[in-house]
Amino acid sequence: MSDTQGIQLPALDEIVSQLAEYVSLPSISRSAGIDIMQETAEWLARRLAFAGGRVEPTEGFPVVRAEWTAGPDAPVVLVYGHYDVQPTGRLDEWATPPFDLVADVRAGEEVLLGRGISDDKGPVLLVVRLAEALLAQVGALPLTVKFLIEGEEEIGSPHLAAYVAEHQMDLSCDLVISADGAQWRPGEPSLSVASKGLVSMDVVVRGADSDLHSGRFGGTVANPARALSVLLAGLHDESGRVNVAGFYDGVDDPSPERRVEIGHVRFDEDDYAAGLGVPCVYGEAGFSTLERLWERPTLEITGITSGGKYSVIPHIATAHLSARLVGQQDPDLVAAAVERHLREHPLAGVTTEVIVDAARVPAYRIDAEHPAIRAASVALNHVYRGENVLLAVIAGTLPASTLFEQALGAKTLFFSFSTSDENLHAPNEFLRLNRIHEGMRAWERLWCLLADGPHRLERNPRRLGHP
Amino acid sequence: MSDTQGIQLPALDEIVSQLAEYVSLPSISRSAGIDIMQETAEWLARRLAFAGGRVEPTEGFPVVRAEWTAGPDAPVVLVYGHYDVQPTGRLDEWATPPFDLVADVRAGEEVLLGRGISDDKGPVLLVVRLAEALLAQVGALPLTVKFLIEGEEEIGSPHLAAYVAEHQMDLSCDLVISADGAQWRPGEPSLSVASKGLVSMDVVVRGADSDLHSGRFGGTVANPARALSVLLAGLHDESGRVNVAGFYDGVDDPSPERRVEIGHVRFDEDDYAAGLGVPCVYGEAGFSTLERLWERPTLEITGITSGGKYSVIPHIATAHLSARLVGQQDPDLVAAAVERHLREHPLAGVTTEVIVDAARVPAYRIDAEHPAIRAASVALNHVYRGENVLLAVIAGTLPASTLFEQALGAKTLFFSFSTSDENLHAPNEFLRLNRIHEGMRAWERLWCLLADGPHRLERNPRRLGHP
Repeated sequence: MSDTQGIQLPALDEIVSQLAEYVSLPSISRSAGIDIMQETAEWLARRLAFAGGRVEPTEGFPVVRAEWTAGPDAPVVLVYGHYDVQPTGRLDEWATPPFDLVADVRAGEEVLLGRGISDDKGPVLLVVRLAEALLAQVGALPLTVKFLIEGEEEIGSPHLAAYVAEHQMDLSCDLVISADGAQWRPGEPSLSVASKGLVSMDVVVRGADSDLHSGRFGGTVANPARALSVLLAGLHDESGRVNVAGFYDGVDDPSPERRVEIGHVRFDEDDYAAGLGVPCVYGEAGFSTLERLWERPTLEITGITSGGKYSVIPHIATAHLSARLVGQQDPDLVAAAVERHLREHPLAGVTTEVIVDAARVPAYRIDAEHPAIRAASVALNHVYRGENVLLAVIAGTLPASTLFEQALGAKTLFFSFSTSDENLHAPNEFLRLNRIHEGMRAWERLWCLLADGPHRLERNPRRLGHP
Repeated sequence: MSDTQGIQLPALDEIVSQLAEYVSLPSISRSAGIDIMQETAEWLARRLAFAGGRVEPTEGFPVVRAEWTAGPDAPVVLVYGHYDVQPTGRLDEWATPPFDLVADVRAGEEVLLGRGISDDKGPVLLVVRLAEALLAQVGALPLTVKFLIEGEEEIGSPHLAAYVAEHQMDLSCDLVISADGAQWRPGEPSLSVASKGLVSMDVVVRGADSDLHSGRFGGTVANPARALSVLLAGLHDESGRVNVAGFYDGVDDPSPERRVEIGHVRFDEDDYAAGLGVPCVYGEAGFSTLERLWERPTLEITGITSGGKYSVIPHIATAHLSARLVGQQDPDLVAAAVERHLREHPLAGVTTEVIVDAARVPAYRIDAEHPAIRAASVALNHVYRGENVLLAVIAGTLPASTLFEQALGAKTLFFSFSTSDENLHAPNEFLRLNRIHEGMRAWERLWCLLADGPHRLERNPRRLGHP
């Protein structure tokens, strides 16, 4: 089967106009009310009507479910994605209204601009439309496909675990295929063999009972904003390596083979820096930029809040820290290491408290030799005409993959057709137009490969039903 | 003249009910519209009707003016104060509604609670009421008294200089007496012989063009929030001494005599710390807490803003710094020293900008032997029955005193009856009830002393009019 031998794909214009409807629903899970989330879920469920699409309640925002069942011997895949989107951030940083889907040309490429188009509305809709087209033209899918599209991914999927546990039988499968989890770059087909874990926390430094006049009390008491700065400055060494004892427990240096492999990735540090608007790349000494991104854990200060532009000694200063984890790092132990570090470096005149956030996700990995990775490589190779498939890492965190492994015993293959340079979570999020048809072709090929032949999925011993 | 020999003072209840009206006008110069500021000014002008009280426009909020002219040979004093107040800050930190004047008992003392009651509505109204009572009962004031009550003190008096320059003739005087500028503590009458100068600035650290996903970009670029923390942590040594070359230029150590004098001030560090809710006092090594407060300059971080509690590498981090100056420190040179320090400690991967605020105020000093200080000491001694009068420093900044010295050639005597422990600029601002009558008695005595006898004010050679 080659690019021209598959089914007839729906016209791009028609898909884009449907995507415009989908993007116009501002399903920001961090701030939207239930009404708009329900409306978005129902919109998506209608697109899945060919497979019994429906909205099911959870303790939080609802999920969209659907399934098309092939014969009893067919492998079973669960397609995962999400219909919620990130907040817009500052509107004045958007070139176009975030919930209007706008076609544009950027750096010579046709793109669609809008919040959620890349993460994850575009990548979800293209597999939905592919399944619909396959059924319409072929009358069947090559394997059993279940859909589970959630509405809380951008807030850490707080109710997904309970929902999956309650519907273990219905959701059981041989493989999860995630339409979320961007590929590395458009020029180079890639598969992610890992995603980073996450643990985050607030560091709160307190001084006096209330803000103090910076003149009338200046020089007499410790300033929590200064104390917090000292604490934060001590978390890393000059190169950005984390300076917290125990932080790197469970982290192995990349193997010589992996370093060679990463060294061969086309990556221009100057272009990368220029694209982001920074004077240069920066980070932990001894590793290349891509090695740091893919193989090394980080501890980022994501925010600091204290006082303001008025003449006080603030009574409180708060920082939020977010650690991305790799390898065998234990989120609880990492949080404990940061707490211990701060406790062992106390500052006079203030008190310091660390409040660790509830969500704690270990790093996720799928073996590079896993049959799904091999099948996906073939599928990408097919669409991208022999380009070598890069084994990359999602430096973000996808807690659902850990959850599916624990609850369903199934590994997750990341198979999204967004790429990580498309302003995910930032203003001016975009998706490259040609990725829509490319993605549909790749899904079509992948399903065929997993259904039959040398790459046929093996039955997950923990799969329930269809005994 | 003793405490019982002066005029009959208006009943406290009646003054308090008038103060309740005054406090109910929320004249927050940082945020209020012109209407409420005008209304407040008019309210105060009506209280000054006995001396031609009126509201006069400036380029910003209006001033309140009034004057009562004694004979051509009488000394002339200009009473300065302000009718604007600080923002309330967080309402949930107030025990009572900030614009309702509430009588209460705190630590055994009767107090009035409300925004502006101590800074500066109470101290202004008491001298207004004293002048009114003197005129009603004696038919004259002992000297010529001019009133200038502004509406922009809490935002740095941005339009006062232009107004004073335009009205130099009308405002000229032998001495400015400020009803603003709190005394040290209620138990101990005090006069301030200095106030600290001020220069403030923003430090802005920029990284990428927009916030970046903390996973998908973590480890590849410098984090502006971390870079700012490193910069801020480097501004002081461990004890809180400013670590910026040139910062202390123009600062002399307090003389041995001054250190002995300060050492005799009743001051319990543990009580002070407990009162503020801090574990201990803190500051520059080699100086006592009161020496640091009165004799040493400070560089406080008054605020930090960057990112938030979401998973980004912030693209910008901003701190606001406020330096309080003493002695001969030059505000421009201090700002330049901080800029140079940051420039000489550059951080990779980010850019740093320092934006110095327009308001730059050198420290102010009046000689301890100035006739006004001696007269004020006698007046306080009279009311407080022989208590030793402490020569203190206003660790805050009163730019008007520098302005009056330059524009009118007149020194400023600080003669307020608030004290610096009354939560000025903070929630639950209060004024001690007994200070109202004490203050009125002290003003009465002070005016008499300055008008005649050994403490009679000398004519200011730069005074205009009444040749």
